[in-house]
Amino acid sequence: MNPTTSFPKAIHDADTPYLALDPGRLDRNIQRLKTRVEGFGVTFRPHMKTAKAVDVARRLFGANETGPITVSTLAEAEYFADYGFRDILYAVGITAKKLDRVIALRRRGVDVCILLDSPEQAEAVAAASHQSGDRIPALIEIDCDGHRAGLPPDGSQLLDVGRVLNAHAVLRGVMLHAGESYYCRSGAELVAAADNEQKKAAQAAETLRLVGLPCPVVSVGSTPTAHFARDLSGVTELRAGVFMFFDLVMAGIGVCKLQDLALSVVTTVIGHRPEKGWIIVDAGWMAMSRDRGTANQTVDQGYGLVASIEGTVFDDLVMVSTNQEHGILAMRSGATRSLPDLPVGIRLRIYPNHACATSAQFDRYHIISDDADTITAVWPRMRGW
Amino acid sequence: MNPTTSFPKAIHDADTPYLALDPGRLDRNIQRLKTRVEGFGVTFRPHMKTAKAVDVARRLFGANETGPITVSTLAEAEYFADYGFRDILYAVGITAKKLDRVIALRRRGVDVCILLDSPEQAEAVAAASHQSGDRIPALIEIDCDGHRAGLPPDGSQLLDVGRVLNAHAVLRGVMLHAGESYYCRSGAELVAAADNEQKKAAQAAETLRLVGLPCPVVSVGSTPTAHFARDLSGVTELRAGVFMFFDLVMAGIGVCKLQDLALSVVTTVIGHRPEKGWIIVDAGWMAMSRDRGTANQTVDQGYGLVASIEGTVFDDLVMVSTNQEHGILAMRSGATRSLPDLPVGIRLRIYPNHACATSAQFDRYHIISDDADTITAVWPRMRGW
Repeated sequence: MNPTTSFPKAIHDADTPYLALDPGRLDRNIQRLKTRVEGFGVTFRPHMKTAKAVDVARRLFGANETGPITVSTLAEAEYFADYGFRDILYAVGITAKKLDRVIALRRRGVDVCILLDSPEQAEAVAAASHQSGDRIPALIEIDCDGHRAGLPPDGSQLLDVGRVLNAHAVLRGVMLHAGESYYCRSGAELVAAADNEQKKAAQAAETLRLVGLPCPVVSVGSTPTAHFARDLSGVTELRAGVFMFFDLVMAGIGVCKLQDLALSVVTTVIGHRPEKGWIIVDAGWMAMSRDRGTANQTVDQGYGLVASIEGTVFDDLVMVSTNQEHGILAMRSGATRSLPDLPVGIRLRIYPNHACATSAQFDRYHIISDDADTITAVWPRMRGW
Repeated sequence: MNPTTSFPKAIHDADTPYLALDPGRLDRNIQRLKTRVEGFGVTFRPHMKTAKAVDVARRLFGANETGPITVSTLAEAEYFADYGFRDILYAVGITAKKLDRVIALRRRGVDVCILLDSPEQAEAVAAASHQSGDRIPALIEIDCDGHRAGLPPDGSQLLDVGRVLNAHAVLRGVMLHAGESYYCRSGAELVAAADNEQKKAAQAAETLRLVGLPCPVVSVGSTPTAHFARDLSGVTELRAGVFMFFDLVMAGIGVCKLQDLALSVVTTVIGHRPEKGWIIVDAGWMAMSRDRGTANQTVDQGYGLVASIEGTVFDDLVMVSTNQEHGILAMRSGATRSLPDLPVGIRLRIYPNHACATSAQFDRYHIISDDADTITAVWPRMRGW
């Protein structure tokens, strides 16, 4: 998009591809999870890794409010600190080299809490706490489902790490992420994943407290488990990120409906290959990302599901392949409908597999009006580490 | 990376993940293809979609020179025009809405040539040429292998489009891209793909010339066919992009060796899951991209092949899966070696599947010294549309 253009402008005037965000759906998605979290009486600490934009954070907390947030990079922490956020969990395992930036943020009055799961990391945090005179708070990552990092909730490793933090830094508690919930295939599986996350969280906190170690924070979260949890006993805070926008992966596992998808890529038809059943558009993997998160779901949506510019889905029309700046649309394998007539120059929306990955391909959101007629504003995104 | 840091600095000091570029390998890769192109006596029009950085263009043409380039977005054209480039092919099918920006660039003295393959696009270019008083030059895209867009090299459609351009704009010639060459599995297949691209190019030019239409430019190109072409009779210019950096996909089809890979992501070990055979690092898909281009090759490299910080490959150690900011390293399925001992805090290089996709995840290149000791400079990248 030419950066000199101004807004509001017609949805048909901005150069394609661009990233469209429907603020009505965004607000509805936010309210849905906030209502759940309020019902549980826990702290809501939304993960800003999906949105990476202060304007989205303002929809979460109110235009002049800040709140507790989770971030995935120190650059995100610094960005949100610049906008007044003062309670930030950096939820990726820390490295010793990064502690200088953590301490610099803390000296600005930002309560940055870090994450770790090894004695080596705890020793580095202890050393940096001594050297800086600032006891750095940390959560210990607990593994609940074998998805990624984390210690068992019941073993001596947890106590070893906890004791180092408690003696030399601040042991603030434990954090779990039910990453395997993204692969659930039924509501019952999602409920079970949420139950498991809550139980392991409570167990980890109990392990620490039994030997007299503190555990004020018990943090859980993933968008699927956040929406299917029945009981959060022992949990003090909940994190989630993709819930704000939702995407085809979330729709595929039943966490949302297609009409909840707030994010799409607007693209223009640039050609046809009728003998192949292809429509070619000017959004390729550079716009959609290479994410194929629905590839192993019941319904494979290719690189995205195609809709009219107004947002009405063309059943079974998907982006079947991509080059850097070309997307190829075709009816999905086995579809009985025929290819719709979409002439050169017409604009379409593509709903993405994975909101985090697709939005990362863009520097800004184009905010579209309810009637899909006007771009009312542009919201910048941050990136990098 | 903290933007306030200055260079040169030690390779161990920049915050991870960062994108490392080896300038010696870059120069060698450039020289290799330039020597081939000079041997053919055709114009070299490198594709800047991979590098998106003027500092890389300067390695191609010389510090104070510009040359003919190919770009994948109008933002790229505008960026390189700002650095003095005056001969630019925008090689993605045009839309009517984008012609304003093309005309604006042309008014700045930039010879922007566009691409199209339909009567609708040609009519839009004709109308814009009349309205602006500037006959816009265009190439007609020809399909040589069923990969993507383009018209057959021998049909009436080509003539129909050519006549509209010749009457109302400028018919500059034809362009082909042997995109299917990325899926070749032997040198013989690559030679055949290059031969086919050359033959279809010559045929398309002949189709136009036989009816008296001009075809001064006959443009072919893809990194695989550029390196395996034996004969470019009838061709006037060659395009390629990923050849500058190379990547695991190119190594997998035999266009380069692992020691030619100029681009890698530097990451830090942040944890271990010994019971799973996992090493966890701080580069996930946000750093590597979601590209899985080697998934269907003979050797699947996961999300990337792991090397020491100095660049020595750990045989069979690959990034088997990713989360947004976490990468999981493990020995590839069937490997007989055991997992190397890589403690928390150690830095590694990950060679990516696809240089275009991985570099797009970063805002800058970190230029590393030959001895992999120092970051000597940072080169910014552009992005967006």
